[in-house]
Amino acid sequence: MTFTPVSKIEPALRNALPRAAFRELSAAYLEEPRGRYHGAGGLVLAPTDVGEVSRAMRLAAEARVAVVPYGGGTGLVGGQVAEHGAPLILSLERMTAIREVLPGENAMIVEAGAILADVQAAAQEAGRLFPLSLASEGSARIGGLLATNAGGINTLRYGNARDQVLGLEAVLPDGTVWNGLTRLRKNNMGYDLRHLLIGAEGTLGIITAAALKLQPRPAAEGAAFFVVPSPQAALDLLSVAQARVGGGVQAFELIGRMGLDFLSETMPEVRQPFGEKPDWMVLVDLGLPAGQEADAALEAIFAEALEAALVSDGVIAQSEGQRAEFWALRESIPEANRRIGSVSSHDISVPLGAIPDFILRGGEAVAAIGEFRINCFGHVGDGNLHYNVFPMPGRNRADHENERPAIKRAVHDLVHEMGGSVSAEHGIGRLKVEDLERYGDPGKLAAMRAIKTALDPGGIMNPGAVLRAI
Amino acid sequence: MTFTPVSKIEPALRNALPRAAFRELSAAYLEEPRGRYHGAGGLVLAPTDVGEVSRAMRLAAEARVAVVPYGGGTGLVGGQVAEHGAPLILSLERMTAIREVLPGENAMIVEAGAILADVQAAAQEAGRLFPLSLASEGSARIGGLLATNAGGINTLRYGNARDQVLGLEAVLPDGTVWNGLTRLRKNNMGYDLRHLLIGAEGTLGIITAAALKLQPRPAAEGAAFFVVPSPQAALDLLSVAQARVGGGVQAFELIGRMGLDFLSETMPEVRQPFGEKPDWMVLVDLGLPAGQEADAALEAIFAEALEAALVSDGVIAQSEGQRAEFWALRESIPEANRRIGSVSSHDISVPLGAIPDFILRGGEAVAAIGEFRINCFGHVGDGNLHYNVFPMPGRNRADHENERPAIKRAVHDLVHEMGGSVSAEHGIGRLKVEDLERYGDPGKLAAMRAIKTALDPGGIMNPGAVLRAI
Repeated sequence: MTFTPVSKIEPALRNALPRAAFRELSAAYLEEPRGRYHGAGGLVLAPTDVGEVSRAMRLAAEARVAVVPYGGGTGLVGGQVAEHGAPLILSLERMTAIREVLPGENAMIVEAGAILADVQAAAQEAGRLFPLSLASEGSARIGGLLATNAGGINTLRYGNARDQVLGLEAVLPDGTVWNGLTRLRKNNMGYDLRHLLIGAEGTLGIITAAALKLQPRPAAEGAAFFVVPSPQAALDLLSVAQARVGGGVQAFELIGRMGLDFLSETMPEVRQPFGEKPDWMVLVDLGLPAGQEADAALEAIFAEALEAALVSDGVIAQSEGQRAEFWALRESIPEANRRIGSVSSHDISVPLGAIPDFILRGGEAVAAIGEFRINCFGHVGDGNLHYNVFPMPGRNRADHENERPAIKRAVHDLVHEMGGSVSAEHGIGRLKVEDLERYGDPGKLAAMRAIKTALDPGGIMNPGAVLRAI
Repeated sequence: MTFTPVSKIEPALRNALPRAAFRELSAAYLEEPRGRYHGAGGLVLAPTDVGEVSRAMRLAAEARVAVVPYGGGTGLVGGQVAEHGAPLILSLERMTAIREVLPGENAMIVEAGAILADVQAAAQEAGRLFPLSLASEGSARIGGLLATNAGGINTLRYGNARDQVLGLEAVLPDGTVWNGLTRLRKNNMGYDLRHLLIGAEGTLGIITAAALKLQPRPAAEGAAFFVVPSPQAALDLLSVAQARVGGGVQAFELIGRMGLDFLSETMPEVRQPFGEKPDWMVLVDLGLPAGQEADAALEAIFAEALEAALVSDGVIAQSEGQRAEFWALRESIPEANRRIGSVSSHDISVPLGAIPDFILRGGEAVAAIGEFRINCFGHVGDGNLHYNVFPMPGRNRADHENERPAIKRAVHDLVHEMGGSVSAEHGIGRLKVEDLERYGDPGKLAAMRAIKTALDPGGIMNPGAVLRAI
């Protein structure tokens, strides 16, 4: 099915929208961070309010022009780039207002183009916490973060992006505005359109603003690296920590020897926490209410875990600066990975209890294909691992082009067999459409297609993302 | 539009399903707690697994027989009773298994017919907490609680029913089974069908099982009644409490003088906490991690609030028994209300900051219609008030039949004007279909109708609930 090129409605768009809304089609709108997808062309429109979005959508729908919503451009599955045709690229970059911060209600209202770091800062200024946090927070925009239901490092405590949302304002594929910007905690007025748009990756409409939940700021925070003998010990350590501080465990990140080796190799300036690199370590981050000391809690957790042989060494951050340094190590791993150059990377999750077995069996499955290095790290407290496969030293990713499909298939088959997800936090985009078809539940897929057709009969919203364009 | 009577497919159903699945059409299936809706007839089927539900749904869909899902029968908006026709009443009462409790993963898998109190008990036995809690927990079933996205007393801390769910198994209106019983914390494999079925009140499919989140049990719990000078002071007190114990405030319930008077009048056996009845008081309930004392925290909150003139008197429960007694008072208020007999009751929510103004203006709006008594109480921490209007002493509800629509309209108009919801936690059912049409966002309603038609083209799923039957 082909779409009308946006040039056909450009005159009508120019009539309906102010000149400033039209942006130059710079390269940024046609690229994505991993360089796998390249846009062919299009017209970039950056409206300033929901009315302008609605007018543009209505014209696109009437003429059957494809519409690609564009947030911060940081998505890792190609959801922001249409490879074919000349779509209307609808950028939220000029809708960046933080409309209201309501600390007394633990809520704030922001426009979809607001950058995550700015949202976090506005919450902090009001003495509150907006807990969504991830590597690209300096450029990712709220609309895209919600459209992809982003995860990140605090999911263990606060949930995914969708769990931070009270209400939405959005434009549906026919241009209809949904005014759902409520900040109510309890509201059972019909189907939950909010959660349907969140995670739909711009295929069912465009989120233009959101009412977000805020959290109390923890009174005391602290972090530690603990050396664990195995992934199973890491999980047992998590139970020990949660038993002691309840929801106070904010993040619980697994880091393997390979990740530390990659850091030494490509970023030697990153300080290693232990003289001898451990096979496995975890970064434990706590946030506690008034009256509790993070250091004392981390020491108590370490002591209890040592007794149970769940840890063998550890270092507790002695200052906020050191805590930031610990986090910087964790956040440097993706960059080190990029410098090494992965053959295949996988954003997967498995049930918590299955993690140790998955790591074991994943290694075997990859070894059956060839000799590779595996860097397995990530948000182990959520069962979400970044499971990345690299060439051996002296070789590079180009040498293994032919093996990539087999590796991906072996890892994904194993994840699926173990009840996991082959898209834990990055979404489907264009990269994983076939994976969704292969591993998704057929009943759910049929329902998804029916919903897509019902809300977007012309199939204009981000065609080719999530579901195959028809 | 009329449906085929279930009698037409009874032979086929008897062929397809075991004899034990067929239940007597007893009065319970045709009634609801407030006696407003009465079913006309039907055939009751109680399957034991998802395959049986699917077979029955398929036969109903093919013949266009209406299907009414039936859980515990405790819903307060008539969602469980079809007033017309002879539907297939699909009861989950025989699917009560608690399939798995996984404390290490903070998860459990239960069938839709499991009673909430049994689910809570199974979690407790595993050293965990399933936090959903409400007055009807001894008979409400998980399937119905999820279908209506139930609220209850712990929403402030743990969210609504939908927030307790990791995955679902469900049968869609054409009989298709959706196997979505994942217990993953991060999973972005396409549209969120889970949240669409939750809160759809059985109009888009039948939930047959759920993977539920568990929480760590608080190490210390405690409760207190605090006398506050005004609803605004109650809100300020909530901020004081949250600043001190973070998420440790589990419940925060407002009780007014009228509620206490109704208790004295109809249930004098309930002990009043204060010698002189206060105009307003709150029940504060805390759950804290290890190392914190609930009594000490409540005392500190009281001291700080006293300094700020937010409280004038208070009593802290000295034992678990006394805490239970405090809660029994709170939970007796709905029963006292029943004994008095309300003219009109409203399950509403407004933004937190709007509560004091709403209580003031609501009183004025009702007084403009006539002389009434108002009992306004409820989950003030969530902005969710039960705002119930009663006759003056010596009169009864029957005297005011004619005024009911005007009262309802005045209260709902005000709630809507203030950005609130006229169905906070009970849902739409059959009672509030017109309210949804009047107050719901038109864009959202159009999307809801499109989704309903897409997933249930014959309109057989719980017709007349949520959306007007077509």
